Amino acid sequence: MTVNFAILGAGRIGQVHARAVTATPGARLVAISDPMAEAAGKVAEAYGCDIRSIDEIAASDDVQAVAICTPTNTHADLIEQFARAGKAVFCEKPIDLNLNRVKTCLDTVAAEKATLMVGFNRRFDPDFMALKAAIDQGRIGAVEMVTVSSRDPGAPPADYIKVSGGIFRDMTIHDFDVARWLLGEEIETVQAAASVLTDPEIGTLGDYDSVNVILTTASGKHCTITNSRRATYGYDQRIEVLGSKGAVSAENHREANIEIADAEGFHRPPLLNFFMSRYTQAYANEIAAFVAAVAQGAATPTTGQDGLMALALAEAALKSVAEGRAVKLAEVLDGA
Amino acid sequence: MTVNFAILGAGRIGQVHARAVTATPGARLVAISDPMAEAAGKVAEAYGCDIRSIDEIAASDDVQAVAICTPTNTHADLIEQFARAGKAVFCEKPIDLNLNRVKTCLDTVAAEKATLMVGFNRRFDPDFMALKAAIDQGRIGAVEMVTVSSRDPGAPPADYIKVSGGIFRDMTIHDFDVARWLLGEEIETVQAAASVLTDPEIGTLGDYDSVNVILTTASGKHCTITNSRRATYGYDQRIEVLGSKGAVSAENHREANIEIADAEGFHRPPLLNFFMSRYTQAYANEIAAFVAAVAQGAATPTTGQDGLMALALAEAALKSVAEGRAVKLAEVLDGA
Amino acid sequence: MTVNFAILGAGRIGQVHARAVTATPGARLVAISDPMAEAAGKVAEAYGCDIRSIDEIAASDDVQAVAICTPTNTHADLIEQFARAGKAVFCEKPIDLNLNRVKTCLDTVAAEKATLMVGFNRRFDPDFMALKAAIDQGRIGAVEMVTVSSRDPGAPPADYIKVSGGIFRDMTIHDFDVARWLLGEEIETVQAAASVLTDPEIGTLGDYDSVNVILTTASGKHCTITNSRRATYGYDQRIEVLGSKGAVSAENHREANIEIADAEGFHRPPLLNFFMSRYTQAYANEIAAFVAAVAQGAATPTTGQDGLMALALAEAALKSVAEGRAVKLAEVLDGA
Amino acid sequence: MTVNFAILGAGRIGQVHARAVTATPGARLVAISDPMAEAAGKVAEAYGCDIRSIDEIAASDDVQAVAICTPTNTHADLIEQFARAGKAVFCEKPIDLNLNRVKTCLDTVAAEKATLMVGFNRRFDPDFMALKAAIDQGRIGAVEMVTVSSRDPGAPPADYIKVSGGIFRDMTIHDFDVARWLLGEEIETVQAAASVLTDPEIGTLGDYDSVNVILTTASGKHCTITNSRRATYGYDQRIEVLGSKGAVSAENHREANIEIADAEGFHRPPLLNFFMSRYTQAYANEIAAFVAAVAQGAATPTTGQDGLMALALAEAALKSVAEGRAVKLAEVLDGA
Repeated sequence: MTVNFAILGAGRIGQVHARAVTATPGARLVAISDPMAEAAGKVAEAYGCDIRSIDEIAASDDVQAVAICTPTNTHADLIEQFARAGKAVFCEKPIDLNLNRVKTCLDTVAAEKATLMVGFNRRFDPDFMALKAAIDQGRIGAVEMVTVSSRDPGAPPADYIKVSGGIFRDMTIHDFDVARWLLGEEIETVQAAASVLTDPEIGTLGDYDSVNVILTTASGKHCTITNSRRATYGYDQRIEVLGSKGAVSAENHREANIEIADAEGFHRPPLLNFFMSRYTQAYANEIAAFVAAVAQGAATPTTGQDGLMALALAEAALKSVAEGRAVKLAEVLDGA
Repeated sequence: MTVNFAILGAGRIGQVHARAVTATPGARLVAISDPMAEAAGKVAEAYGCDIRSIDEIAASDDVQAVAICTPTNTHADLIEQFARAGKAVFCEKPIDLNLNRVKTCLDTVAAEKATLMVGFNRRFDPDFMALKAAIDQGRIGAVEMVTVSSRDPGAPPADYIKVSGGIFRDMTIHDFDVARWLLGEEIETVQAAASVLTDPEIGTLGDYDSVNVILTTASGKHCTITNSRRATYGYDQRIEVLGSKGAVSAENHREANIEIADAEGFHRPPLLNFFMSRYTQAYANEIAAFVAAVAQGAATPTTGQDGLMALALAEAALKSVAEGRAVKLAEVLDGA
Repeated sequence: MTVNFAILGAGRIGQVHARAVTATPGARLVAISDPMAEAAGKVAEAYGCDIRSIDEIAASDDVQAVAICTPTNTHADLIEQFARAGKAVFCEKPIDLNLNRVKTCLDTVAAEKATLMVGFNRRFDPDFMALKAAIDQGRIGAVEMVTVSSRDPGAPPADYIKVSGGIFRDMTIHDFDVARWLLGEEIETVQAAASVLTDPEIGTLGDYDSVNVILTTASGKHCTITNSRRATYGYDQRIEVLGSKGAVSAENHREANIEIADAEGFHRPPLLNFFMSRYTQAYANEIAAFVAAVAQGAATPTTGQDGLMALALAEAALKSVAEGRAVKLAEVLDGA
Repeated sequence: MTVNFAILGAGRIGQVHARAVTATPGARLVAISDPMAEAAGKVAEAYGCDIRSIDEIAASDDVQAVAICTPTNTHADLIEQFARAGKAVFCEKPIDLNLNRVKTCLDTVAAEKATLMVGFNRRFDPDFMALKAAIDQGRIGAVEMVTVSSRDPGAPPADYIKVSGGIFRDMTIHDFDVARWLLGEEIETVQAAASVLTDPEIGTLGDYDSVNVILTTASGKHCTITNSRRATYGYDQRIEVLGSKGAVSAENHREANIEIADAEGFHRPPLLNFFMSRYTQAYANEIAAFVAAVAQGAATPTTGQDGLMALALAEAALKSVAEGRAVKLAEVLDGA
């Protein structure tokens, strides 16, 4: 069975997914939708698909699945619309910046028995998958401590930061999901510290640029997350897991695998500088996984619940910073 | 201008180039040719192109360029046929196993003023290109010594070895071309040693599986090449260049960039095990470079002359092994 | 001027310092003291020094400096005795497990205008010194985040744990000092999480084996510390510092710098497994630094105040774990 | 039994061995000899030993072993004198620059049934020992190819080069010994290339600064050696061995194990820049091994025969360069 796709949103990430759909055996790109006619036109031309409105897509018999690549504040409504329309839905994180809205959205998805996959690309990165496989194969025994280092080359523009929900909901959210994925046990407590160190303007906007988080599960496993909005040496994405029998780590990706030696020492190129080049394969893999799940009527590897939990962890981290204390995840989930 | 392509040969490498042509902006795959109808059919279906005979392609007005991916013993004839037909020709190395046949073929190409690019994929590997760029930028000063380590995971089947022309013409030929590319000066002398260490059957076939070569230029620069047909840890492809101000090296590619630590130590996965996965990007880049040259009417980055010189170095290496002496390249080139 | 030394305590660390004193130009080992005659005798024989009682050493005119290598619960009394006796004092960390006792001890040292150096060996490790030098040279700009990973190969015996003051005072204390050293600014707030994951007996003793800490300075700089009492792959000692212009990190030390490749991949030996082999050079360097300070009448590179602050951070971490909140260092320092 | 030592020659290497003897349990430094009274005096003072003439040492009942650290042209005579005097002899390589003189010297040693160890420090380097142990444990199967990369930071002064016997006898000789050690089979054939690339003055002196060698054993195993008198990035000393089941390599030693990341990439310090700091432990280990052999009346791990063979390989390499052909080692050994 071929899964016929429509993509909502022809921006940067919509283009990435258009390419991924086209390159995935068993998937076909049928339509693109975007309020900007020119953007939609480019995708339509590049991949030979129709341009349709969102409502037309919802009503299209020849579309089984959609990928929502529109701005965050439209995600929840679109998920509900397409869940009701009987389409399988792939949505970029987050579902919404408001935890209650995420909950009502997921209630609708559940009521419609719809398929929803939330895009957490880290889980589909080949190196991180190899790291997870090593854990699952028992190579390091029982997981005890996860360390996630995630640093952006530079901060996004102020306009983006304003609508981003803040660093915990925008950037750390990926690492919260990685923590849940690798700890293999739900997180109970969140301790967080947050500062403005790279650019005072970020503070003016009410956000942080440098954060550290300790997550603790019921059995006492830990995950530490370190984030910065600035890393001059490139897009820094490392994971390390300590277990009872050993440890496993995933290394960064460089622009080229060469080394120059001279009188000053040994020099290697900076890291890949952009999340799209760093996670090219991850984006392709997550679409392929969604297609496989839809084609087989199987559960998707990441779910709306994963989106909810990562957002709840972000809320708890914010609360921990604000109140200077360890926050139970239950406080946030029940309060929402 | 779009460059319309036909591919001759729908085998493994033909499929690689079909994908590369399709993925290259400015190129279009028009036709595939293969005596095996099924093989041709698969490519035609996958990429939506025609199936034509070789003679039909030579006569096709809608084809500007061909990629020759047929068995080695057909290369020279096809190059001549398509040079005469006014097509730009991309041909996998080698042009022929016989040096004189290569020369007459190149004479025809010259007489027809045809465009011919011989595929030496190493030159288009992103890491090796970064290494070359570092040299060209003067990062290591004047090149003095090049070291090429090239080891295959395992020997090819006996049937292949029989028609391969032997390890120097089949495997070391890539490294000879790398040597010329990086030394920046023609090679004058060849000293080689060759053994059968991995499989006695290879010796029975009159070939070697383990060879080492020292190349020397007129000004005394050296390149050493070490080859083995067996490397249990994967496809080993390293280059190191020493210069007057420093050195530059390119590292191997692993299956995954992870490391596992346990009581026995630290463990990383083996190398990529197959030349096609190791050089995926190189194959794409060399087609893109050919397309760019054809579209602009510019010289191709590798030429028939490069193919001739690499083969001559292979001849000289064989002669050095047979006669136990340093062989001047001129002896082989003049004698041919 | 030669600095004449006596060493108090002929145990493991006393022997290390005896060797260091002997190997340091400008220092001479005059006497060893230990209640165990056999232990004292071995050192006396190995290094050709006298055996004297502690009181005899305090009264010895030919001794200018002592290294206190006795059990922790004797440190404060001995520091006071030798400060009053006019000797320069080198004391292994900690001064005492009780913060008030440390304060009164330091008051005595101050009143006597005595020289006191507390042994924090990390600051004298050649790699960590090179890392610090890179920071001081401005190579990474302003320090923003320090990450210290410190894991022991295995937990000490229960008898040791009972008198150790717990993991924060015994193990993390080194990392607290490293944090202060590298942040270049006093720590204001401590957030800590602690678990028992490697051995339930450690929990029975009221201690933890797995801890993570976030330290924050007044200007918002962070340090995260991760500790475990178990690392199957050896003694794991890493530091990483992120700054405004870059980052610097120090790598672990392996048993041998070799790598074995086979069909399973690439394998390197485990880390050095013992703190004394890992920090051999650091122990020698710290004694040499003490000798230099005493000989020149200069300030010692680490002081009693450093010992006090590291212990206060341990107290704050314990309080943070107990009360589930961020603890101001001032609470602990003022309350003590 | 304590082995009482005298050291002949109080220069740089004599001082290294004086320290090694002093630090070796079971060895005692009894006397130093040097025509320069000041040099001898410094060693005598530093280590508390006598100053004696060479003849006095030969006649001393309280000396069982000597380390010959005098200029090369005195080695053979001194070996013979002390072999006749019944002393165990440790001599720095080479025994002599003339192969016939080496042979007659070894004849004397044999006739006297004397103990002679020639110092090849590489065999006693901890990393290279770990590499050899991995081979001996069967970790890489049967050895097939050895690659030795050995590059000096800079050329020695012209005065040294004049009496050095040339690069093959002075520098490559270490690598020839490493080749024999690791191949586990005698070398049959030598092919060498040599150039002057770093400094024309070296050519004026009749020497080379850049050489590459291929060694082949009777069964076809290879060793390649690459040498340069210039490496801006430090003292480059690497070994790599390919076997039927895998490979093992030893890495270089850096000045510090840190890495700095910035906008230009990742930077590590240069290599240790001096053979004495790189091989400190190797020098200590080789003296300890000699002491152990003398104390136990056992064979020394390296012998006069090893010195002879390494020199013969140097002769063969020179002949190969001069005559442009593969030279059988037997030609040199028989002809000598």
